[in-house]
Amino acid sequence: MLNEMPMPPLNTWYVACAPSEIDGQPLGRVICNQRLVLYRGPGGQAVALEDWCPHRGAPLSLGRVEEGKLICGYHGLEMGCDGRTVAMPGQRVRAFPPVRSYPVVERHGFVWLWPGDAARADEALIPELAWASDPAWAYGGGLYHIACDYRLMIDNLMDLTHETYVHATSIGQPEIDETPCTTRVEGDHVITERFMNGIHAPPFWRMALRSHQLPDDQPVDRWQVCHYTPPSHVLIEVGVALAGHGGYHAPADKKVSSWVVDFITPETDTSIWYFWGMARNFRPEDKALTAQIREGQGRIFGEDLEVLEQQQRNHLQWPGRTLLKLNIDAGGVHARRIIDRLVAAERGAVTPPAAAPAS
Amino acid sequence: MLNEMPMPPLNTWYVACAPSEIDGQPLGRVICNQRLVLYRGPGGQAVALEDWCPHRGAPLSLGRVEEGKLICGYHGLEMGCDGRTVAMPGQRVRAFPPVRSYPVVERHGFVWLWPGDAARADEALIPELAWASDPAWAYGGGLYHIACDYRLMIDNLMDLTHETYVHATSIGQPEIDETPCTTRVEGDHVITERFMNGIHAPPFWRMALRSHQLPDDQPVDRWQVCHYTPPSHVLIEVGVALAGHGGYHAPADKKVSSWVVDFITPETDTSIWYFWGMARNFRPEDKALTAQIREGQGRIFGEDLEVLEQQQRNHLQWPGRTLLKLNIDAGGVHARRIIDRLVAAERGAVTPPAAAPAS
Amino acid sequence: MLNEMPMPPLNTWYVACAPSEIDGQPLGRVICNQRLVLYRGPGGQAVALEDWCPHRGAPLSLGRVEEGKLICGYHGLEMGCDGRTVAMPGQRVRAFPPVRSYPVVERHGFVWLWPGDAARADEALIPELAWASDPAWAYGGGLYHIACDYRLMIDNLMDLTHETYVHATSIGQPEIDETPCTTRVEGDHVITERFMNGIHAPPFWRMALRSHQLPDDQPVDRWQVCHYTPPSHVLIEVGVALAGHGGYHAPADKKVSSWVVDFITPETDTSIWYFWGMARNFRPEDKALTAQIREGQGRIFGEDLEVLEQQQRNHLQWPGRTLLKLNIDAGGVHARRIIDRLVAAERGAVTPPAAAPAS
Repeated sequence: MLNEMPMPPLNTWYVACAPSEIDGQPLGRVICNQRLVLYRGPGGQAVALEDWCPHRGAPLSLGRVEEGKLICGYHGLEMGCDGRTVAMPGQRVRAFPPVRSYPVVERHGFVWLWPGDAARADEALIPELAWASDPAWAYGGGLYHIACDYRLMIDNLMDLTHETYVHATSIGQPEIDETPCTTRVEGDHVITERFMNGIHAPPFWRMALRSHQLPDDQPVDRWQVCHYTPPSHVLIEVGVALAGHGGYHAPADKKVSSWVVDFITPETDTSIWYFWGMARNFRPEDKALTAQIREGQGRIFGEDLEVLEQQQRNHLQWPGRTLLKLNIDAGGVHARRIIDRLVAAERGAVTPPAAAPAS
Repeated sequence: MLNEMPMPPLNTWYVACAPSEIDGQPLGRVICNQRLVLYRGPGGQAVALEDWCPHRGAPLSLGRVEEGKLICGYHGLEMGCDGRTVAMPGQRVRAFPPVRSYPVVERHGFVWLWPGDAARADEALIPELAWASDPAWAYGGGLYHIACDYRLMIDNLMDLTHETYVHATSIGQPEIDETPCTTRVEGDHVITERFMNGIHAPPFWRMALRSHQLPDDQPVDRWQVCHYTPPSHVLIEVGVALAGHGGYHAPADKKVSSWVVDFITPETDTSIWYFWGMARNFRPEDKALTAQIREGQGRIFGEDLEVLEQQQRNHLQWPGRTLLKLNIDAGGVHARRIIDRLVAAERGAVTPPAAAPAS
Repeated sequence: MLNEMPMPPLNTWYVACAPSEIDGQPLGRVICNQRLVLYRGPGGQAVALEDWCPHRGAPLSLGRVEEGKLICGYHGLEMGCDGRTVAMPGQRVRAFPPVRSYPVVERHGFVWLWPGDAARADEALIPELAWASDPAWAYGGGLYHIACDYRLMIDNLMDLTHETYVHATSIGQPEIDETPCTTRVEGDHVITERFMNGIHAPPFWRMALRSHQLPDDQPVDRWQVCHYTPPSHVLIEVGVALAGHGGYHAPADKKVSSWVVDFITPETDTSIWYFWGMARNFRPEDKALTAQIREGQGRIFGEDLEVLEQQQRNHLQWPGRTLLKLNIDAGGVHARRIIDRLVAAERGAVTPPAAAPAS
């Protein structure tokens, strides 16, 4: 549709939007090259349809939502949650062609969309996020639009040596570079981890230690455990413990830890919606701390934007030029193999349904 | 030239510009995918030429007009109204290749251009606009550039049910939706009309009633009579009368009425120059009222821009996807049939002349 | 790479940047459709490499320079001046594929780059600029990016009749138009010259006369001698002398003269980096005068931008349409012949090397 390059897996769940993005109004968004309108239906439930009014092809997302009905902003067609027209002033609508409706589920603080074969959509496949419903945890995050292939962002997150260079003033430090990482694959789960012991905490973690009433000037053990799962979710366990208390396994009062949350949703083949955030299990009720962490993380993660967009531009200029696959790249390399396998299986099995015919 | 999609009819008159746009300086404008320069020649008459200097291909529109001569702004070539070079410092210009000259006529407050075969240009085919030269009438209007196929704008103007949704706060009201329209075709003339009796006047018309010294809080009869004529002119009789006095046929002191004027000129296949305005026969000498109406109309008609541009973008994303042709769409559907017939006749008859050979 | 149109000569020297552009940081620049990073190596010498990190394809120009080493801003790869990786934290880099390195020389106040076959790069072919190292001369200049084919800029500079129209308020005057020029070719050197005697000096030259303590209200003899040499250098001797003292050959205290310096570097086939400036041999120590002249020249040369970009746009709209080749165009016509000959010889001889293979 938008272009002809290889598509990401479609029979899987992607984060489509934050719940607040569809409160009170429809949202137009392209996901996996498909133009969608997202909104809340009669019961407040999230709904996703093709962003096409069957009357004259205006985007439904320009309309408004009235009591869960999506009203086209051009001539007032009322669209139902199943993609069938409900009513239109002065018209019999029964024979109106339907538009495609997508499986969509609101869970864990995100709206999840299944862009592929609706018959295969299974809510059980939405990833478990234990912290999302646990009052001992707090979450804050944001959304960035980045003009790069979604796989470049997976690479970025599975090789954190970039922190030393891209995030030198916040979370980067030479020890990341100097400490080898290890990567293992468990089914469709790729884990890349690095443990740095007896080091100085970088600025972001010193702030976290202080907010946790821990000294910020003593040696710490730091860890990064990156978890990739398909299609493009990267969850990273990160933390520091006062040195000598067991590191990753230190007792709660000797460490600060959290989950870095990264849900990457392809928009086109060269752009993404990047949902980033952090879940923490200390001082979860402290909203000011949540805001402070989100602001800091947003600034740090914003540093990746230019690198990724320029990297993408370079790749388009030199298509097919070989990239190195070093030990530090193993996480991304394994993730791409899983993606390739999933896409091949999809293509071999059932072709994803085309847009609903508008006869 | 600019693209390869089907062209609009060429052997016909389009509005090229407002007269004031060529006062004192040349104007570069693309019309029907053709790059033109418009200016005033020696007698002040409007002239249109290819926007190409035969010397080195600079746009003539970057130059200046001196005593009706168009002087290229790069090296001073003097171009004549017929597309033949008049003079150039230090040069014999007789063998200079001509550029194409277009039939152009200033009439009724507009500059009209015939982009097709000049030999077939007939001034008698310029539409009659009785109000344009009648001192009992006043006219005010403006120009918008919109990134949409010109036919989407014809559709828009021939189906005014969109007013209820796009212009809800000014001229829209539910009764437009609820009152069926009728469409008839008389040769190349398509008429879609709707009569709404005993309704409340919407805000724009209440303002008009007040400016006409009529009460704005009584039931009115409202009418909309849309006239399409080729290639893309839509003139709409609109008005309200105090209810029970004959509606459209009510005496002048019981109604407020006017012509909505819409001349749509294709720029490229996906963009237009949209000349909009309103002609009224009440208080024609009241310039403040003219300005007030123009300002209000400009704001209202600006509400169509985003809808049309997004609709166009959707159509480009889903090429060939079928649109519904409801009863309310009949005006646009008939207009497109007339356009298709005219284009087919043009293509079958004489191929429009190519750019003048530049040997 | 960026497109498929005919390339300019590659086995030749172009100005890549001003020396100050690479002080302290790398510079990303496209030259002749090739993406480069320029920076200063360990000894401060200018270096040019492909703007591609062999690790993951990020642009090296996003990185930083540390003690003459170019450090990739993504994962810290250290690149050497020869395009071979020097080091990378935790990696053996010996087998890393090299990126292409370009011959580059800093001389005469410019950084010169040879985009073609490095084996044929010969520093002796860099043009001599006697004034550049002579304390009796001062130079000031700037850089413009213009969206036009580099040959349109050569045409512009070899036919100064455009000054009468494009620069009417500064250096233009009718006498340029009225006085024939002569063009001769000496090998690969094209000279177009014009001598205007007993005329009034235009505003720019009146300023120059005053700054030279000469009267600005007396008749002058004015000259323009344009020198084209490949690939796209245009140096113009310009000046005025009080009338009757020998014009171009007048003694130094009766004239004001300078070199207009134009180095044109193709970026893509439709855009250039335009290094312009002026070298003068009067009051060379007067930095305020240098600044004043540069400001005036920058303003005047900026007037060419829109003309050239619109001319280019017109050429793209009417590809292949013939241009006239008048006597005033002879300089540009001969320059293009030389370019065509050089390109044909290059293509016939050795194909320029492709990007270094990144196995």
